[in-house]
Amino acid sequence: MKGFKFAGIHAGIKNNGQKDLGLIYCDKPAVAAALFTQNQVVAAPVILGKEKIKKRLCRAVLANSGNANCFTGQNGIKDAMACSKIVGNNLDIPEELVFMSSTGVIGAPLPMDKFESGIPDLITKLSEDNLDDFAEAILTTDTKKKIINKTFVINDEKFSITGIAKGSGMIRPDMATMLAFICTDINISAGDLKTSLKKACEKSFHRITIDGDTSTNDTLMALASGTSKACAKDFKSIKIFQKAIDKVCFELARMIVKDGEGATKLVQIIVKGAKTKEDALKACETIAHSNLVKTAIYGEDPNWGRITAAAGRSGAMVVPEKMDLFFDDQPLVLKGSWLGREAEKKTAQIMKKTEIDITLDLNLGKESDRFLFCDFSEEYIKINAEYRS
Amino acid sequence: MKGFKFAGIHAGIKNNGQKDLGLIYCDKPAVAAALFTQNQVVAAPVILGKEKIKKRLCRAVLANSGNANCFTGQNGIKDAMACSKIVGNNLDIPEELVFMSSTGVIGAPLPMDKFESGIPDLITKLSEDNLDDFAEAILTTDTKKKIINKTFVINDEKFSITGIAKGSGMIRPDMATMLAFICTDINISAGDLKTSLKKACEKSFHRITIDGDTSTNDTLMALASGTSKACAKDFKSIKIFQKAIDKVCFELARMIVKDGEGATKLVQIIVKGAKTKEDALKACETIAHSNLVKTAIYGEDPNWGRITAAAGRSGAMVVPEKMDLFFDDQPLVLKGSWLGREAEKKTAQIMKKTEIDITLDLNLGKESDRFLFCDFSEEYIKINAEYRS
Repeated sequence: MKGFKFAGIHAGIKNNGQKDLGLIYCDKPAVAAALFTQNQVVAAPVILGKEKIKKRLCRAVLANSGNANCFTGQNGIKDAMACSKIVGNNLDIPEELVFMSSTGVIGAPLPMDKFESGIPDLITKLSEDNLDDFAEAILTTDTKKKIINKTFVINDEKFSITGIAKGSGMIRPDMATMLAFICTDINISAGDLKTSLKKACEKSFHRITIDGDTSTNDTLMALASGTSKACAKDFKSIKIFQKAIDKVCFELARMIVKDGEGATKLVQIIVKGAKTKEDALKACETIAHSNLVKTAIYGEDPNWGRITAAAGRSGAMVVPEKMDLFFDDQPLVLKGSWLGREAEKKTAQIMKKTEIDITLDLNLGKESDRFLFCDFSEEYIKINAEYRS
Repeated sequence: MKGFKFAGIHAGIKNNGQKDLGLIYCDKPAVAAALFTQNQVVAAPVILGKEKIKKRLCRAVLANSGNANCFTGQNGIKDAMACSKIVGNNLDIPEELVFMSSTGVIGAPLPMDKFESGIPDLITKLSEDNLDDFAEAILTTDTKKKIINKTFVINDEKFSITGIAKGSGMIRPDMATMLAFICTDINISAGDLKTSLKKACEKSFHRITIDGDTSTNDTLMALASGTSKACAKDFKSIKIFQKAIDKVCFELARMIVKDGEGATKLVQIIVKGAKTKEDALKACETIAHSNLVKTAIYGEDPNWGRITAAAGRSGAMVVPEKMDLFFDDQPLVLKGSWLGREAEKKTAQIMKKTEIDITLDLNLGKESDRFLFCDFSEEYIKINAEYRS
């Protein structure tokens, strides 16, 4: 995409030879918006990012894996500032417009020598074509790069959105992180970009779970270069852009869950017929976070009792005798009654799939919501119990 | 204990030959108090129990394992009522004073023939000495009976409390249940008994977690026969009784967590120095429910990053630079700083124990709370993924 260059190298932050340092460069200052973790324990780059984003402009994003720069105190802040300065000096851009994102080990100081030697090298690799290298450089326990490219049209003018993400649970070796970067060439104001990003996040990254833990480093950032002729400025064009960014964020979020630590299945829980929007979300969240539901799905078991009981304790209003439950299109419970062995056999077949929709209709109102989650396997326990051994 | 008789038999509700039907009989109507699950999806015996307890009296409790009588509709209610009637007729006591508790498979009708033939047999076994049989008859995936007997003194008069419980997670094959029965010979009013039970529950059963899921059948019941000369009626004597019932409930709760599905370690998290009581509880709960903390403990890893991050997302007020973290008495983090490899080695040794105290001092106030939980192993996944295979 015009207006952006990418790079990714192995700078030596990780011991295993994999890429660990990435850069997004904007040819001109890009309009920027960002959302950060809600955790009160936050990493140094998040503390700085929250301040820098107030300028609503960005020229470069330096991202590293292998070290989260979290619980590193004032030294962590200094180190992150020094990194921005090195990038700024080498690219001859203001350091205030250089953002940083880190993911990896917690509590360890940033290995500044690796950044000092790595950044100039990284800059020589900057190219429109090196998106894959950047996407690789931000991975930790992820098993796959997460990139999406889409083209859309506003008033006959094309614009593109590229999304890059990482995250597959609270990742090895510690808490790690969901990082996502959205680059677009559309013309849009910073305010409208922020609003669109928030709305898109609400329907995507805020509707997924792998293990229920949130990180100290989570960051979602959108950059708009304005190099296309497409412009989002009025109700209709902003609506089109909203749909576009929704789609990109949802796909990225989906990729993260699909690559969840130890995950074997991707499940979408849809709660319909809730009395309020809050009820629909509460029921979705509680079901998606239930270890009993997650282990049952891993066991390919259409365990309707665990799903309805999770809804029952969610705080959402439910009436057991009104509940309908479907696996894909196959009903298993209607008006609170189990449909019997034949229906159970059919749902058990559906459970063998790797992607499953579960729909719970509370039949109490008109509100609905959905949530993506994955199953829970022995592999998750292994990854998270044995990371230091 | 005087005033109570117990029995437990295999009536054929379970297929594996284990005891599955139990009875507590009170020689005279006992003063009764009970607390039930907060889940909106509740089993038939809980629906009936909530009504019956309004009389504040109890003559007998029939408890069965192997069938939860949940999601069984109006037939489930009728069946539970029929069971109470059989007990009432056979013991010549009013059926309104007969309570029922069920735990086991969900969605299946009660096998009434087993109850019809089993109850008369069960009644012939009633004896002060058959407490163990009753405790066995209510077990599901528990690996151990959970009984505690304690004697206390009020104004030179002795009184006893016997507690019996079952529960080790949301138990095979479905959601199952925490059931606990407290029998005491003290003289106490129903109102005071209810208040004491609530307070004791708050500090015990409401301060434990195995997997974060609550059941449709959870029941905690206290019965006071008044056969001892000890009397709890004024401030001082009620305070003594409160301490006694607190102790019994806490020990029972501890036994449940220790016998948690797949658990290898029992952990007490203590949060001190919180600004408010709510903050202390929120931090405790979030840490105790974190799958990342639980898997780290299984891996014998003093993973302070996961613990502090869980506190950070709990909603409790925290300031990273003020946090102290101890494993037993060994500090690992002081004022937000990791104490280094030597301290980490010492805590790693502590993590090898089967019972561990973790203390997080937020250093923001004077409130504290504690929570018991267990670790999270592959065995938990196996038990809960493969129960029907």
